[in-house]
Amino acid sequence: MTALITEADIDEIALGAAVLGTGGGGDPHVGSLIAKRLIRMHGPVRMLTVDDVTDEDFVVPVGGIGAPSVSVERIMAESELLAALEAIERGTGRRPTAVMPIEVGGGNSMIPIAAAAVAGIPVVDGDAMGRAFPEAQMVTYHLAGYGPGTTVLVDHHGNEVVSRPVNGEWSERLARAVTVEMGGGATMIDYAYGGAVARECAIPGTLTLAKRIGGILRGRDAAGRQLRDDERIDALCTDLGAIRLFDGKVRDLQRAVDGGFTRGAAELDGVGADRGSAFRLDFQNEMLLARRDGALAAVTPDLIAVLDLATGMPMTTDAVRYGARVAIIAIPCHEKWRTPRGLETAGPAHFGYDVEWTPVEQLAAAGTEIAR
Amino acid sequence: MTALITEADIDEIALGAAVLGTGGGGDPHVGSLIAKRLIRMHGPVRMLTVDDVTDEDFVVPVGGIGAPSVSVERIMAESELLAALEAIERGTGRRPTAVMPIEVGGGNSMIPIAAAAVAGIPVVDGDAMGRAFPEAQMVTYHLAGYGPGTTVLVDHHGNEVVSRPVNGEWSERLARAVTVEMGGGATMIDYAYGGAVARECAIPGTLTLAKRIGGILRGRDAAGRQLRDDERIDALCTDLGAIRLFDGKVRDLQRAVDGGFTRGAAELDGVGADRGSAFRLDFQNEMLLARRDGALAAVTPDLIAVLDLATGMPMTTDAVRYGARVAIIAIPCHEKWRTPRGLETAGPAHFGYDVEWTPVEQLAAAGTEIAR
Repeated sequence: MTALITEADIDEIALGAAVLGTGGGGDPHVGSLIAKRLIRMHGPVRMLTVDDVTDEDFVVPVGGIGAPSVSVERIMAESELLAALEAIERGTGRRPTAVMPIEVGGGNSMIPIAAAAVAGIPVVDGDAMGRAFPEAQMVTYHLAGYGPGTTVLVDHHGNEVVSRPVNGEWSERLARAVTVEMGGGATMIDYAYGGAVARECAIPGTLTLAKRIGGILRGRDAAGRQLRDDERIDALCTDLGAIRLFDGKVRDLQRAVDGGFTRGAAELDGVGADRGSAFRLDFQNEMLLARRDGALAAVTPDLIAVLDLATGMPMTTDAVRYGARVAIIAIPCHEKWRTPRGLETAGPAHFGYDVEWTPVEQLAAAGTEIAR
Repeated sequence: MTALITEADIDEIALGAAVLGTGGGGDPHVGSLIAKRLIRMHGPVRMLTVDDVTDEDFVVPVGGIGAPSVSVERIMAESELLAALEAIERGTGRRPTAVMPIEVGGGNSMIPIAAAAVAGIPVVDGDAMGRAFPEAQMVTYHLAGYGPGTTVLVDHHGNEVVSRPVNGEWSERLARAVTVEMGGGATMIDYAYGGAVARECAIPGTLTLAKRIGGILRGRDAAGRQLRDDERIDALCTDLGAIRLFDGKVRDLQRAVDGGFTRGAAELDGVGADRGSAFRLDFQNEMLLARRDGALAAVTPDLIAVLDLATGMPMTTDAVRYGARVAIIAIPCHEKWRTPRGLETAGPAHFGYDVEWTPVEQLAAAGTEIAR
């Protein structure tokens, strides 16, 4: 990828971001349509590496907040993106010089690209999660001790809410309440900081990573070799150091939109080599907990992605259907999430899961031993 | 009352505002303690008549939002008042030159006096309701076609939310959601406008009116004559052109804090001349609907106040108790509420009551005829 994001790059970034989104982050297809339309109208978007960011920059993470189930039905307007950027400028007195994904996952990888196109400013090749997470304080800025700062919420009615919450948890509470009132989805800016803080906190290279993942799932590995359909998932796992946890068919699905989240669980029966085993996935916007025959297989903050078994295409928690044949893969999360503060912020206990956090690599090694 | 509000004026204003508050507007006792403490610390508060307000003024209505049941347990801090004034200045770029009650009712008559003391600016002798109402768009500004403008919510945690809602109804929705999240009560500024708009919209003289009512209920009529305890309620009705609807004893009471409101109903059995009759009051923060033996006796936007039968002291919806012996009085509302837009905004249909709005004077005249 060059330092310019063109319309032709969008589908692969969106596809990769849907994997990193672990089912959340908003609908990547809707996001990609918006990004492509705005690049068509305003021209390609310049991409800065995290190292390119200077102390003088004002780096504004922008994204959608709300239940993914709502983002599908809610096409973000250009005016909403501009309104958000104008509101953060009014609220802080600083003009944004670059936007960044708050999370690389799903549609939220696309919204900053769309905003960059509209505003004529670059997008930073990085994000504040290295994946997607359901709550606003689950960002590397929070882990580094930075507060949410001045935060912005705008909706398609034209409402604008600018908050100064005392900390990340309050930001999440207030933003979630406003988002629900706004109809379940809104455009949000938070953790807008000068370049030095952005460089310290951003997980670098995640848009580029998303594009590489998208390329593999479209049948081309990192070396440019063509991949057969049935090679893609394994090629992806090799590239990412990911673990293929389970191949199965969705037997049961509970899902509800509740309090600004899409929550639920899916139960699967094994197919192929996994025939005879059962698997369960719990989600809150994102896939958070995976259990194989009752034993822990992977848990947040490690990434759990659901891919179509035949095509390798990632599925959002909203798109998972009864009868779908899927592969479940797990990707080790960024090391920032494996610290005590990372695990306290986004580990299983935060979500009310009574399991001890264990790195997915370790769980996989133990699983292999048991199978022997 | 001079143009200065001193500590000695506070109790009478609070008492009168509790009558005009028709049960809502926040706890007047708690509000009066805050106002007295801050006047003691910062000195008396200068009071402007609505006519004194100049075009150069920036008149900021400030008050509490939330369920009255919460306001009792939530003592507003000086820092919260200052934070609200600072937030509106940052959000609009204009420094407040005067504060005003958004509603004269209950504790919300006291908060602007407290804020004026802290900020060293005058308070306007007027308000935007001429009473208290439960929802943020129920103000004379809204009736005149003005939007809420830049609105501020701050809480005792230090959170600050500055919104630009597209209209009054959205302001109410967003503010209520944030208030619930903030713990059910917050300090709010909305409808902050320049002096010309404030002069057009304010209902003049309502702080002075509250003081006069308070004086009567403390046993001194407008002419300075001493009143016996049992003369006070009738003297008040004479002064206000109010109607004494019913004397009774609370037989049944349903009340709950729900969605940022205190909602419920009280049923009463008649005493004295009203023995043998039954009465029902419905409330949502404020008393909204009064029925005598099933027939409409008074309905919002006319004012319905509950007074202790022995002492004349007004009761908030939160303070009404099983077994309490009370007089129910009705006061004709300001003419701005009797327009089509006034009735659409705060009439019975808005609250879901299937009754036709009828002026309380007319209901009383009809009731008298039936009684004959």
